[in-house]
Amino acid sequence: MKAIIISADGFEDIELLVPYYRLKEEKIEVDIASVGKGKIIGKHGYEVAVDKALHEIDPDNYDLLVLPGGRAPEALRKEGDAVGIAQYFMRRNKPVAAICHGPQVLITGGVLRGRHATSCRSVAGELKESGAFYEDSEVVVDGNLVTSRQPSDLPAFMREMLRLLEKGSG
Amino acid sequence: MKAIIISADGFEDIELLVPYYRLKEEKIEVDIASVGKGKIIGKHGYEVAVDKALHEIDPDNYDLLVLPGGRAPEALRKEGDAVGIAQYFMRRNKPVAAICHGPQVLITGGVLRGRHATSCRSVAGELKESGAFYEDSEVVVDGNLVTSRQPSDLPAFMREMLRLLEKGSG
Repeated sequence: MKAIIISADGFEDIELLVPYYRLKEEKIEVDIASVGKGKIIGKHGYEVAVDKALHEIDPDNYDLLVLPGGRAPEALRKEGDAVGIAQYFMRRNKPVAAICHGPQVLITGGVLRGRHATSCRSVAGELKESGAFYEDSEVVVDGNLVTSRQPSDLPAFMREMLRLLEKGSG
Repeated sequence: MKAIIISADGFEDIELLVPYYRLKEEKIEVDIASVGKGKIIGKHGYEVAVDKALHEIDPDNYDLLVLPGGRAPEALRKEGDAVGIAQYFMRRNKPVAAICHGPQVLITGGVLRGRHATSCRSVAGELKESGAFYEDSEVVVDGNLVTSRQPSDLPAFMREMLRLLEKGSG
């Protein structure tokens, strides 16, 4: 079992680090990918080493895609490689977990039409415009997709993310 | 099942928030206690609401004590109430989980003599002087006591903390 977290500078520290440590607790291998190698720095100053540059990623090697929030998704949605990986996961019904601004990458990928999802409040408008059914809940599960709104939703977000991995998707 | 996290301003954000969210994921009730009510602010700027002032705590109401690191334990070890709660847990063999600088509160309480434990490197000296057997491992479990060194140990720290709660202690 292997997960990939895609993020960039300005990530919401806790929305990246909680899934990262939680997946490792389950002995799931986790790679962190970003635009380039080196490290990325969160809004609160936590530094995280980048294991893979986006262009190196073969999404077939991963069982779960995690998209944390913060300012990172606004940068990632301009990266064809990031959007392409998200599309690949969604079209093949592989598990995707996105929180806060994370769903912006899925919106840009055009893969939320007809899907139930949530996000931070400021993204709710464009989520609806992209054809998704927005719900103001701590976690929304729709098939292979788990979404949450904010850090205080992390307990429910992690619970459903792991439940999805146990079930397998598709 | 109910847990109490004791901390103060200058806590290592991730060492408080990861256990906090992880315990809530398990539907364990969690109170955060500090010197006074209001809120405490972590080294990285995360703010956490304080549920209880230390003097209000009846340790019999809790099944687990968590002591995160950062600069908070240096302040807490001067608080008789914090030290008293830690002593109460240790003497009754109730589960205690301390990470990084967290064990400083236990050292001041004089409850580590003959116990196996770890901590961040800068606390190792006083840990040994207090009569504990220091081990440089990601997690050390000795009866009711789980200790870890640093944020990167959080997956092992959480795994053993929850294992201890499942078993019950004593």
